[in-house]
Amino acid sequence: MNFIAAAITAAGAAIAAGYGNGKVISKTIESMARQPELSGQLRSTMFIGVGLIEALPIIAIVISFMLMSR
Amino acid sequence: MNFIAAAITAAGAAIAAGYGNGKVISKTIESMARQPELSGQLRSTMFIGVGLIEALPIIAIVISFMLMSR
Amino acid sequence: MNFIAAAITAAGAAIAAGYGNGKVISKTIESMARQPELSGQLRSTMFIGVGLIEALPIIAIVISFMLMSR
Amino acid sequence: MNFIAAAITAAGAAIAAGYGNGKVISKTIESMARQPELSGQLRSTMFIGVGLIEALPIIAIVISFMLMSR
Amino acid sequence: MNFIAAAITAAGAAIAAGYGNGKVISKTIESMARQPELSGQLRSTMFIGVGLIEALPIIAIVISFMLMSR
Amino acid sequence: MNFIAAAITAAGAAIAAGYGNGKVISKTIESMARQPELSGQLRSTMFIGVGLIEALPIIAIVISFMLMSR
Amino acid sequence: MNFIAAAITAAGAAIAAGYGNGKVISKTIESMARQPELSGQLRSTMFIGVGLIEALPIIAIVISFMLMSR
Amino acid sequence: MNFIAAAITAAGAAIAAGYGNGKVISKTIESMARQPELSGQLRSTMFIGVGLIEALPIIAIVISFMLMSR
Amino acid sequence: MNFIAAAITAAGAAIAAGYGNGKVISKTIESMARQPELSGQLRSTMFIGVGLIEALPIIAIVISFMLMSR
Amino acid sequence: MNFIAAAITAAGAAIAAGYGNGKVISKTIESMARQPELSGQLRSTMFIGVGLIEALPIIAIVISFMLMSR
Amino acid sequence: MNFIAAAITAAGAAIAAGYGNGKVISKTIESMARQPELSGQLRSTMFIGVGLIEALPIIAIVISFMLMSR
Amino acid sequence: MNFIAAAITAAGAAIAAGYGNGKVISKTIESMARQPELSGQLRSTMFIGVGLIEALPIIAIVISFMLMSR
Amino acid sequence: MNFIAAAITAAGAAIAAGYGNGKVISKTIESMARQPELSGQLRSTMFIGVGLIEALPIIAIVISFMLMSR
Amino acid sequence: MNFIAAAITAAGAAIAAGYGNGKVISKTIESMARQPELSGQLRSTMFIGVGLIEALPIIAIVISFMLMSR
Repeated sequence: MNFIAAAITAAGAAIAAGYGNGKVISKTIESMARQPELSGQLRSTMFIGVGLIEALPIIAIVISFMLMSR
Repeated sequence: MNFIAAAITAAGAAIAAGYGNGKVISKTIESMARQPELSGQLRSTMFIGVGLIEALPIIAIVISFMLMSR
Repeated sequence: MNFIAAAITAAGAAIAAGYGNGKVISKTIESMARQPELSGQLRSTMFIGVGLIEALPIIAIVISFMLMSR
Repeated sequence: MNFIAAAITAAGAAIAAGYGNGKVISKTIESMARQPELSGQLRSTMFIGVGLIEALPIIAIVISFMLMSR
Repeated sequence: MNFIAAAITAAGAAIAAGYGNGKVISKTIESMARQPELSGQLRSTMFIGVGLIEALPIIAIVISFMLMSR
Repeated sequence: MNFIAAAITAAGAAIAAGYGNGKVISKTIESMARQPELSGQLRSTMFIGVGLIEALPIIAIVISFMLMSR
Repeated sequence: MNFIAAAITAAGAAIAAGYGNGKVISKTIESMARQPELSGQLRSTMFIGVGLIEALPIIAIVISFMLMSR
Repeated sequence: MNFIAAAITAAGAAIAAGYGNGKVISKTIESMARQPELSGQLRSTMFIGVGLIEALPIIAIVISFMLMSR
Repeated sequence: MNFIAAAITAAGAAIAAGYGNGKVISKTIESMARQPELSGQLRSTMFIGVGLIEALPIIAIVISFMLMSR
Repeated sequence: MNFIAAAITAAGAAIAAGYGNGKVISKTIESMARQPELSGQLRSTMFIGVGLIEALPIIAIVISFMLMSR
Repeated sequence: MNFIAAAITAAGAAIAAGYGNGKVISKTIESMARQPELSGQLRSTMFIGVGLIEALPIIAIVISFMLMSR
Repeated sequence: MNFIAAAITAAGAAIAAGYGNGKVISKTIESMARQPELSGQLRSTMFIGVGLIEALPIIAIVISFMLMSR
Repeated sequence: MNFIAAAITAAGAAIAAGYGNGKVISKTIESMARQPELSGQLRSTMFIGVGLIEALPIIAIVISFMLMSR
Repeated sequence: MNFIAAAITAAGAAIAAGYGNGKVISKTIESMARQPELSGQLRSTMFIGVGLIEALPIIAIVISFMLMSR
């Protein structure tokens, strides 16, 4: 039963990170092409944003490992 | 049974945070490219917003840990 | 059975707060970039709005804790 | 069985309030940025609207507490 | 079994009221910002509309209470 | 079993009325803001429309009461 | 079993009528605001349309009553 | 078992007719407001279209009656 | 079991015909309002199209009758 | 069991043909209204397209008959 | 069990072919109306595309026949 | 059990290929109508793209045959 | 049980690759038609992108083969 | 049971990577066609973004292998 739980957690974390990061990074690339002189600032904001988005999925991955080792 | 409960909670928290943060940060980057002189103010609002959004998912993560340790 | 109930409640509360807050805060940032001189007023309205939105999910989190401790 | 019922009720109430409030408040902020001189009137309409929207979810929360205490 | 029935009824009523009211009130606020001189008339129409929309969900809430007391 | 049946009927009726009424009333308010001199005619058409829409959900509510009293 | 069948039929009929009528009446109100001099003709077409749309849901309601009385 | 079958058939027929008729009639009203001098021709085409759309749902209603009387 | 099969087939056929016919006829009416002098040609193409669309759902209705008489 | 299989196949074939044909024929009618002098060529392409689309659903109908006669 | 498997395969193949072919052929007809002098080239590309799209559904139909004859 | 597995694999492969190929080929035809002088280059890119898209579905078809022969 | 697992993995991989590749290649063809002089660079970026997208589905296919051979 | 868990994890990882990468790479190609002189910078940002997106799905693949070897 805990194997299924670990699978649900890991799949949910992957989908959440893929959705959020895909949205942020694609919007960053679109903005860089529109305002090339701001590319440094936009890229640093992108890194902060990716870090904030991946915070919870990584905790979920930790939960998934803990569930798997039960 | 509580393993599945922990998995549902963690996956829901990850998806909620990924959706909300992805929306806020991508809109921030789009706005920074349109109004570069406001980037400091927009980024500080972004940090406040990300904090407000992640409040409930983090509580849900705490619930997930409590469910897992039962 | 009450573990699953606590998980459904917590996940629903997280998703509801993530959706509502993400919509309000992203619209606030978009409006601040369009009308920079109104940023104080918009941000205070945002705080009121986030408080009103998070009222019910926080009660749901309380219900989730009560269900978990049964 | 009544724990699951309380969970469905609380989650539904949270999602309903999050959706309705998020829509009203984000539209209010967008309108305030377009017509800054109407911000007082719009905000008072927003408070009335949020009160009308939260009427039924709060009754649902009451039902959820009653179901939980059975 | 009737607890689940009460929960489905209450959650459906909350979602229906949240969806309908959110749509009407957000459109009212948008229209008030476009035609400020009509705000009294629009707000009175909004109150009538909210009353008409909440008629059936409130009956559903009554059904939910009747189901819960069986 | 008939409790669940009453719940499905009541929830479906509430959602149907909430969707239909929300669409008609929000469109009425939008049209009144665009053509203020037609507001009387539009509002009377709105009342007719709301009456026509709520005809079937109210019959469904009656069915729900009949199912509940079995 | 026939109680559930009656509930499915009644809920489906209510949703179908709510969707179809909501679409027709909201489009009628929008068209009346655009062409005020055609409002009589549009309203009569609306009545015909609502009658044609509600034909089958009313038959479904009849089926629902017949199923309930089995 | 045949009661459930009759319910599925009747609900499907009602939804199909509601969707198709709602689309055709709302488009007819929109076109009449744009080309008032063609309203006779458009309305006659609408009647033909509604007849063609309701052909199959009415046969499905017949099937539903036959299933109910088994 | 074959009653349920007949119900699925009939409901699927009704929905398929309602969707396809609704799309074709509403587009025909829209095009007739835009090019009134082509209305004969468009209407004849509409009849051919409705015939082609209803070919398979009618065969599915035949299958439904055959399943019901088993 | 094979009755359900025949029903799934026939319903899938009807929906696939209804979706594909509805899309092609409605686009043909729209294009004929835009380029009346090409109506012969467009209609012949429509017949080819409908033939190509209905190839697989008709094979699926054959499979449905074969499943039903087992 | 293999009858259900054959039904899933055949329905999936019909839906896939209906979706893909409907998209390609409707776009071809739209393009022919915009560039009538390219109609030969567009139609030949359409035939190639339909052939490439129907390759896998036809293999799936073969699999369906093989499953049915087990 | 492996028959159902083969059916899921084959249906998934057909739908994936139908979606991807339909998108690529319809976009190719649209681009050829906009830039007729590039039609050779676009068509060769289309063939490469269709080959790349069909790589994995064909492997899935192979898996389906292997599952069926177990 | 592992046959079903292999089928889920293979179908998921095929759908993921079909969605991602279809999006990238169709956008490449659209961009080549808009900027013909960049076609070499765009096509090389397309090959890199397809390679990056197909990395994980191919690993999933490997997992599917490993599951099937258990 | 762990085979199904491995399958859910691998399929979720493949879909998440396919969605995120497809969005980022297609937006990159679109931006390169609009701003050809920025293609180096955009492509390097694309590589960073793909790396960040694939971080969690690859961890999920590792979890899938660990689940499979239990």
